[in-house]
Amino acid sequence: MRSTHMNSERQVIAVDVMGGDEGISSVIRGIELAIKLFPNEIGGLVLVGDEATIKEHILHRNSVFHSVDLEIYHASQAIDMAEKPMHALRNKKDSSMFRAIELLKENHVTGVLSCGNTGCLVAGGTLKLGVMPGIDRPALATVIPAPTNHFVLIDVGANPTTSAKSLVHNALLGTLYYKAAIDPQKDPRVGLLTIGTEEGKGSETICTAHGMLKKINGEIRYCGLIEGFQLFSNEIDVVICDGFVGNILLKTIESLAETIKNYVKSEMRKNPLRMLGAFLAGGAFRAMKRDLTADKYGGAPLLGLNGVVIKSHGSSSVEAIAHALRLTFRLSKMSGEHFLNNTIEKVNLLIE
Amino acid sequence: MRSTHMNSERQVIAVDVMGGDEGISSVIRGIELAIKLFPNEIGGLVLVGDEATIKEHILHRNSVFHSVDLEIYHASQAIDMAEKPMHALRNKKDSSMFRAIELLKENHVTGVLSCGNTGCLVAGGTLKLGVMPGIDRPALATVIPAPTNHFVLIDVGANPTTSAKSLVHNALLGTLYYKAAIDPQKDPRVGLLTIGTEEGKGSETICTAHGMLKKINGEIRYCGLIEGFQLFSNEIDVVICDGFVGNILLKTIESLAETIKNYVKSEMRKNPLRMLGAFLAGGAFRAMKRDLTADKYGGAPLLGLNGVVIKSHGSSSVEAIAHALRLTFRLSKMSGEHFLNNTIEKVNLLIE
Repeated sequence: MRSTHMNSERQVIAVDVMGGDEGISSVIRGIELAIKLFPNEIGGLVLVGDEATIKEHILHRNSVFHSVDLEIYHASQAIDMAEKPMHALRNKKDSSMFRAIELLKENHVTGVLSCGNTGCLVAGGTLKLGVMPGIDRPALATVIPAPTNHFVLIDVGANPTTSAKSLVHNALLGTLYYKAAIDPQKDPRVGLLTIGTEEGKGSETICTAHGMLKKINGEIRYCGLIEGFQLFSNEIDVVICDGFVGNILLKTIESLAETIKNYVKSEMRKNPLRMLGAFLAGGAFRAMKRDLTADKYGGAPLLGLNGVVIKSHGSSSVEAIAHALRLTFRLSKMSGEHFLNNTIEKVNLLIE
Repeated sequence: MRSTHMNSERQVIAVDVMGGDEGISSVIRGIELAIKLFPNEIGGLVLVGDEATIKEHILHRNSVFHSVDLEIYHASQAIDMAEKPMHALRNKKDSSMFRAIELLKENHVTGVLSCGNTGCLVAGGTLKLGVMPGIDRPALATVIPAPTNHFVLIDVGANPTTSAKSLVHNALLGTLYYKAAIDPQKDPRVGLLTIGTEEGKGSETICTAHGMLKKINGEIRYCGLIEGFQLFSNEIDVVICDGFVGNILLKTIESLAETIKNYVKSEMRKNPLRMLGAFLAGGAFRAMKRDLTADKYGGAPLLGLNGVVIKSHGSSSVEAIAHALRLTFRLSKMSGEHFLNNTIEKVNLLIE
């Protein structure tokens, strides 16, 4: 492995190509699509995994992969989607996921993308890279596409149980991510998700976090407690919750949107009149696909670590992987950590 | 107040008409609609609230309300939507909600319907009626309409924090409710909602509850841990979770479905071609409204109490209130409690 990567401003991303429910093939095709779609944004690539398998997969895509600065880094093991983090940390030292993280730790690359096991990525990333000063635990963020405003949901699964302080940190990390992924010019409106907007509603953790967030309102734009039915009404840009609620919510939102889409599609095909109608109104459905697809934000960054680590959904489509790779390059370019370091220190003093 | 109601098999429901975000008017119109739509299912009614206001509201609807056995029970107070349960219990002794519950406790009626403050209904119902033998805390259940199979979600807000044992009880109560509201002939498939289906995923409470549920698999049809994206794929009929997750999920699902519907509608109106298409395909949209509307299940029963108490959503439409009233009559007719009493005893022995 050359270590010249960090000599310049150039970004190099290590991709753990062995993870993912769909296997190496969809990851490779996702990278290929990213190179085609975003030629100016994709820098250097290190594909981490079984060398022979990778070579076999990129062989007949040589033309595309030759256009980028590409290396293969051999790792003899892969982590299963069902593997427990502790088991993986002990037994999968030469896994593509952990090797990719180590390349980042040793500054050979500037970011990591993985479609693999979330728990192992959180555990491996936290142990190997460490958390940012002042942050207790990392959080997974994601963007939910909504017709009126796309919003950040954080945490979607890094920490199933959380503390009030971690929820406050999620507000900071979520604000940073909103600026990176959606709009750098906007101070996003932050809301704490609970079951009623009256003071005192929800758990004790929620009430404590609510009090803390009110105290740091100068650092972020805190708008108070929010309920489930406020998510899609353009009131909030960053939604804070624990990883248990966020993970269930993310998966439910994705599958409900998909379900309604399929339902409308099948109803539209039930007779010729409807089919004609669907044909004439086709633009509306294409707009829906464009505005409401999650693929554009296929990556969920593991925020709060010393380094850029992006998780692409396990069931990621080729398109989602392409966008996740672009996101990894973008975040790796940002120097958001510097902004955050000062803020976290200040915030921790305010809430302690 | 006559107390002859219980002499026969006839059902009499006390309706707390003062609760609800929309005020007494929509509750009265909901009752009127129920009488028109389900003349054979609506028995006796006791409208609880300010007598003068009620009389004023039903005055020009005399023809409909004369067709049923109706009484007005005066209560001088109403509970606000933002009121804290402890405050209400101390200061709103003559509120329509608590008076309605007392009528049930004293056997003057066979069930209660309220659109009011959920926290106060849970607290008042639990204190005044008491929980069923063997049950620790009541739970709010609701039916979520999905294209392939409608399912029961329990708890949607009675207990924001829960115990493993309460989750097991929710499985029993949810099974009972599925049979009452959806299909009496089917043994519903029960799933415990968490963030991954591998053993050991989720919180400690989830893991303990999962172990307990496996033990009582003969009493209910337990199918194991489920994730958010399995809700709409016809795998599960009863989804168990705590009231924090359930409440957020219910509100998110309702508002997302509404958001997509409105989005498609507005896209369809953007040009004449699309409008023509929408007109031709109108049947598909009507089918969607018919299949996916939550109004049909406007009531959320507070299960596990000694008595039938139904909560209609605070923002209930007139249609939802009408269906909630029918549901109250149906549940009041069922003798489910007897089935449940034996089961709960058996289950508690198995899991302790």
